[in-house]
Amino acid sequence: MDENGSVDRLLEIVRAVKAKGPLVQCLTNYVSMDFMANGLLALGAQPAMVHSPAELDEAISKVKAAGGAVSINIGTLDLSWIESFKSAVAACKKYNLPWVLDPVAAGFTALRTSTAVELLEMGGCGVLRGNASEILSLSGEDGAAKGVDSTKGSDGALKAAKSLAAKYGCVVGISGAVDYVVSPEGSIFSCAHGVPMLQKITASGCLATRQ
Amino acid sequence: MDENGSVDRLLEIVRAVKAKGPLVQCLTNYVSMDFMANGLLALGAQPAMVHSPAELDEAISKVKAAGGAVSINIGTLDLSWIESFKSAVAACKKYNLPWVLDPVAAGFTALRTSTAVELLEMGGCGVLRGNASEILSLSGEDGAAKGVDSTKGSDGALKAAKSLAAKYGCVVGISGAVDYVVSPEGSIFSCAHGVPMLQKITASGCLATRQ
Amino acid sequence: MDENGSVDRLLEIVRAVKAKGPLVQCLTNYVSMDFMANGLLALGAQPAMVHSPAELDEAISKVKAAGGAVSINIGTLDLSWIESFKSAVAACKKYNLPWVLDPVAAGFTALRTSTAVELLEMGGCGVLRGNASEILSLSGEDGAAKGVDSTKGSDGALKAAKSLAAKYGCVVGISGAVDYVVSPEGSIFSCAHGVPMLQKITASGCLATRQ
Repeated sequence: MDENGSVDRLLEIVRAVKAKGPLVQCLTNYVSMDFMANGLLALGAQPAMVHSPAELDEAISKVKAAGGAVSINIGTLDLSWIESFKSAVAACKKYNLPWVLDPVAAGFTALRTSTAVELLEMGGCGVLRGNASEILSLSGEDGAAKGVDSTKGSDGALKAAKSLAAKYGCVVGISGAVDYVVSPEGSIFSCAHGVPMLQKITASGCLATRQ
Repeated sequence: MDENGSVDRLLEIVRAVKAKGPLVQCLTNYVSMDFMANGLLALGAQPAMVHSPAELDEAISKVKAAGGAVSINIGTLDLSWIESFKSAVAACKKYNLPWVLDPVAAGFTALRTSTAVELLEMGGCGVLRGNASEILSLSGEDGAAKGVDSTKGSDGALKAAKSLAAKYGCVVGISGAVDYVVSPEGSIFSCAHGVPMLQKITASGCLATRQ
Repeated sequence: MDENGSVDRLLEIVRAVKAKGPLVQCLTNYVSMDFMANGLLALGAQPAMVHSPAELDEAISKVKAAGGAVSINIGTLDLSWIESFKSAVAACKKYNLPWVLDPVAAGFTALRTSTAVELLEMGGCGVLRGNASEILSLSGEDGAAKGVDSTKGSDGALKAAKSLAAKYGCVVGISGAVDYVVSPEGSIFSCAHGVPMLQKITASGCLATRQ
């Protein structure tokens, strides 16, 4: 990662986050709520888990005022959570606040794929981060997801990521043995820092999205 | 803490809890359920996470028979959880069992403030524990909450805590660098044992309420 | 455990699980989701927390195709979760996939006992695992549950376990200081490996069911 000074750049970003302590509102899954919250605190951010449509508009207006961000993870979605996700995206659009999407297990069921696509179509997504199976399935290809895990290498989803980044005007990350980050304009940053052990820790992918 | 023998008194209480192993029924948030349960077990209590209105009356009658307690935390509230909170308070009143309230992020949204106030108005609350922003907002002042975290020192909420303790006949705790505990009659106990690291552990405030 | 070569047999099973990496779909409680997922990963399985009736049929057809299993834990049940449990059992029957049941706190409330019995009556349960109070209450006896914990020794529930195993054609496990596993035909395997410390770790019983 060091060849182009990206370690320095990364440290700068981490320091900026610690200095700012941004409020990050999460609509995330039951499995990872605790881990997400502690991961964000460790990074210096302030997590707030708020999901009720009865308070999302007010909460997101305050997150906007505080210069924060909203993060959506569909890991344990159901019809009630999907309503919350849509309310959150609508409020983000209203207040011009970027939001981040983790399309957990997109491709494993039609509900997951269609929910993630529907949210992206609403517009305003800033970052989309998934594994290869998830990114492939969102671009209409067969991602061959096995539950929440990918069966494909991250490089196999690069074309799909570029297409999604261009279509939705967002940054697309593919995590795997090699991580890829694709800009809306199509430039690619890669990082071969895969740690196999991370696959043995639940929600480590969720946490990557948050950060 | 030692000047007035409170360490001895505290050890006595901890020993009594371990000896009794009280059943503590929790209606708490998704983020802290696991941490609450382990914290209560470590203290010697028996946690039971029960929230469905379809079983709350029966469960709380049994908690009463076992000499236990009920704890309510509004951290990840929504309309369905609010219904559960109200059912729980109603059953506590019916069986004359005190309940404890953690008004997470009261003041951050109107829904949180009004829910906490509505529960307190139902009566029978034994202990209310919050940070300065939460306590201020419950007494009608501007708590300036930033998400789930307080932006004010605990001493700034002492007057509000006294007012709430008198109004609702409950003990009110304000946690912060200095913790305050106010009795319904207005006597104040303080403890300057703040540990900044605790702010970096999610749900540590939730856990304090339980215990 | 060694007298009849069961340690060797157990190691063989653990190796087989690691080699296969089975997909285990969990409908579990809010308290233990994170712990379940990490426990399954540590064992070499792939957890997938999927509960919405809007995707259960499709998910379970894929779990069947992948040679996986479904696990149901009623720990934080409510009417919405009960609907999910029933949809999952129906799909397991449709695709001929065995499912596992952890009847958390059966006997503590009527809702828990009746829900567990109703699921068992639907048919197809492969393994039922509970503590003595839970197993007793499912067979119609007074289990004297104190919240989620048993007040009785596991041997006191052996007769009830045999009766349930024969009635529902499933393996029944009773966990406690001595663990018992009863086959549908009535043969009994016991294991006196109780670790008191496990009672101090929330969800350790839930995890035992999963594995």
